[in-house]
Amino acid sequence: MKALVFWFEMASTYSYLSAMRIEEDAARAGVQVVWRPFLLGPIFRAQGWASSPFNVYPAKGRYMIRDMERLAAARALPFRMPATFPANGIAAARMAIVAARDGVAGPFVRAVYTAQFGAGADISNADVLSRVAEGVSLDFARLSASASAQDVKDELRRSSEEAQALGIFGAPTFQTADGELFWGDDRLDQALGWSSRL
Amino acid sequence: MKALVFWFEMASTYSYLSAMRIEEDAARAGVQVVWRPFLLGPIFRAQGWASSPFNVYPAKGRYMIRDMERLAAARALPFRMPATFPANGIAAARMAIVAARDGVAGPFVRAVYTAQFGAGADISNADVLSRVAEGVSLDFARLSASASAQDVKDELRRSSEEAQALGIFGAPTFQTADGELFWGDDRLDQALGWSSRL
Repeated sequence: MKALVFWFEMASTYSYLSAMRIEEDAARAGVQVVWRPFLLGPIFRAQGWASSPFNVYPAKGRYMIRDMERLAAARALPFRMPATFPANGIAAARMAIVAARDGVAGPFVRAVYTAQFGAGADISNADVLSRVAEGVSLDFARLSASASAQDVKDELRRSSEEAQALGIFGAPTFQTADGELFWGDDRLDQALGWSSRL
Repeated sequence: MKALVFWFEMASTYSYLSAMRIEEDAARAGVQVVWRPFLLGPIFRAQGWASSPFNVYPAKGRYMIRDMERLAAARALPFRMPATFPANGIAAARMAIVAARDGVAGPFVRAVYTAQFGAGADISNADVLSRVAEGVSLDFARLSASASAQDVKDELRRSSEEAQALGIFGAPTFQTADGELFWGDDRLDQALGWSSRL
């Protein structure tokens, strides 16, 4: 089975859209999803941006919210921007690494995004993450402890460096087994089609 | 019949993709296309960019070329980046205004894009534009003279100001009769669907 690497950033609105559908769509295409959280902050800073481009460029930010409203409505997904955007998603990203090792990245990551962009919750808050994890029957104490281990911190830092080295500049990005990159939720179908033909 | 305003920039790669299909797709959706060339240069400069974001952010620029190669191949369109990007598209945009007044924006604009991004021609060159116009049976001497008139220059400047005031920050952008904006060739189907339901 061909693998498609799903590079996502926990604070990214469009990653939410892809996370909610990628497993079902990939299964239909006969493609296996590899969940790889990374951090966009260092990549944005390297481009000279102190925040998300949606904050740096307000017209783009206003458009993104309207675009998300329309796309979420069309897909029957809840959508509500959190008060602080982008959230500090480092803790959630480290937990996603642990969840991926345990084979439960899908349920955990979807629950984090649904809390954040469906209900407007602040995912930098440990209580929020605790409720999210327990809502999908994950042991938060264990998840939290594992996520604080040095090897997980190192893995997230290395993944973010790897993403930047690959030329990734936004999320979600899909990486095929033959090295093609597809950027944006708009490209998920194309990335799955490409992978299924390998 | 509902109208959809097609805001395009003559030097924009993704506008090429939309220009090549918008009339057929709109006809199928029962939507009328309004061709409105504008200039992205002033909008980019207002955001602090001295050039296209594809030049300002090289990773994004490299991705765009690969993305265009794949999309053009899938649509059986030729694709070749011109040596100088972005081209100075002011003369071509003014001619597109004249062509739109004459009801021949589609053939003219498609021919300009095909020369530029299908064959790599420099559309700031009057000889190139002359061959393009004659290739679609337009009288270049008349087109060129009309495009140099003050009212056409004024219209292009006003259109670019209007685009910026609407919150447009990239091309192509599609504007529905009820004021929705859809950015990018990826959103053409959605914009047509929205328009056809009005």
